[in-house]
Amino acid sequence: MTDVTLLPGERLDDLCIKNLRIIQHPEEFCFSLDAVLLAHFARITARTEAVDLGTGTGVVAMLLAARGVKSVTGVEISPYLADMASRSVGYNKLAATIRIIRHDLRDIKECLPSGGYGLVVANPPYRPVGRGYMNPNDRVAAARHELTATLADVIAAARYLVKYRGRFAMVHLPERAAEILRAMSDAGLEPKRLQLVYPTCQAKPKFLLVEAVRGAACGLDVLPPLFVYNSDGSYSRQILEYYRGEA
Amino acid sequence: MTDVTLLPGERLDDLCIKNLRIIQHPEEFCFSLDAVLLAHFARITARTEAVDLGTGTGVVAMLLAARGVKSVTGVEISPYLADMASRSVGYNKLAATIRIIRHDLRDIKECLPSGGYGLVVANPPYRPVGRGYMNPNDRVAAARHELTATLADVIAAARYLVKYRGRFAMVHLPERAAEILRAMSDAGLEPKRLQLVYPTCQAKPKFLLVEAVRGAACGLDVLPPLFVYNSDGSYSRQILEYYRGEA
Repeated sequence: MTDVTLLPGERLDDLCIKNLRIIQHPEEFCFSLDAVLLAHFARITARTEAVDLGTGTGVVAMLLAARGVKSVTGVEISPYLADMASRSVGYNKLAATIRIIRHDLRDIKECLPSGGYGLVVANPPYRPVGRGYMNPNDRVAAARHELTATLADVIAAARYLVKYRGRFAMVHLPERAAEILRAMSDAGLEPKRLQLVYPTCQAKPKFLLVEAVRGAACGLDVLPPLFVYNSDGSYSRQILEYYRGEA
Repeated sequence: MTDVTLLPGERLDDLCIKNLRIIQHPEEFCFSLDAVLLAHFARITARTEAVDLGTGTGVVAMLLAARGVKSVTGVEISPYLADMASRSVGYNKLAATIRIIRHDLRDIKECLPSGGYGLVVANPPYRPVGRGYMNPNDRVAAARHELTATLADVIAAARYLVKYRGRFAMVHLPERAAEILRAMSDAGLEPKRLQLVYPTCQAKPKFLLVEAVRGAACGLDVLPPLFVYNSDGSYSRQILEYYRGEA
């Protein structure tokens, strides 16, 4: 294994997929299930050139690389997080596949080409400013609240990047489904595939996975439900497959 | 029981709820699970004054009456179906609660007052003209294809009828979710509650239940999944409760 430079407070966590590890800081935003769900929901081939908007610590970019995309560009506004992601990429020897760029996705035109990508993914901040507890750490707050990018900003960036018939996949909150589907459609990214992620078969869904295709006709393929837990509280077969990297 | 006048080919079917019966004709559109789902999804009180747009044989109107609404007006364009629904209402002694009017919902302003109802429900035709097999019986075709009313027509009629903060509940196809949520929102009927109905826990959803509230802010409450069948092929507990009239 490559040596890794950890800054004070950082730790090297297990991504639980193909022996990948990720640098995280317990006081910063640490990845959770939604990132894993998004990385597995996105449809990829060995020719897929992808962009991860707001990559943070690079978790989704690394999971896409593990699944076998040709390339991923992770865009991150925070210099600290972009550096952390770059160091994780180096540690995992993924520099040939993943490039991390420090940039504001609202100014995406300054750094990446229009219509150049077959896949754009985003695990954006879920909550509008003013709704819910705001974390005092600005970077954690920006990962959870729409401080540095709103839903509209993320969709506009995706629309700019994705090529004709290319795909934009996002994980978000079910409560914002109506806004999300409308904003995608308004941007010419037609929602084509959707899955609700329910903690159990008796609970309200916690996450919405949605994939839009640029230039497609309307008509949504709603997938079977995805359950996180079995009734005995253990992880479901599908989630275990994601973590084992079998899916 | 009241005498019932059955025309040639008609039969008196069991609604399986509170001993209600419904006149149906095997060559016409006969009610199915979606009508039952809609009638139970709609939130009602004993003060609810409701309209059922495109009531057909009156099944949803009668189920709402069985659940205890104050009144239901069923609007139906086909003279034959409107007459059939009226005879079912009479047979079940529900004339004090249900009124069936023969009218085109596209001209709803001619027959019902604006903003006069707390609840509007619709089990509209699911498919745009030109998609899928078209039944040679015009009335069956009109129940399945948007021949006499499009999604936009139904939503416009609902918007006209429902009072401020009143509700519009609809059952439709999941594949049209994006169109439906957008059209409701555009009409000032904000989608607030949504449920997907899956045949089993491993299947794609077959129906979408959605309730919009006139004048509400955005934000969707997505309910736990509703399953039609257990894994052994028997009806789920929830569906059995609907049929027993316990819900």
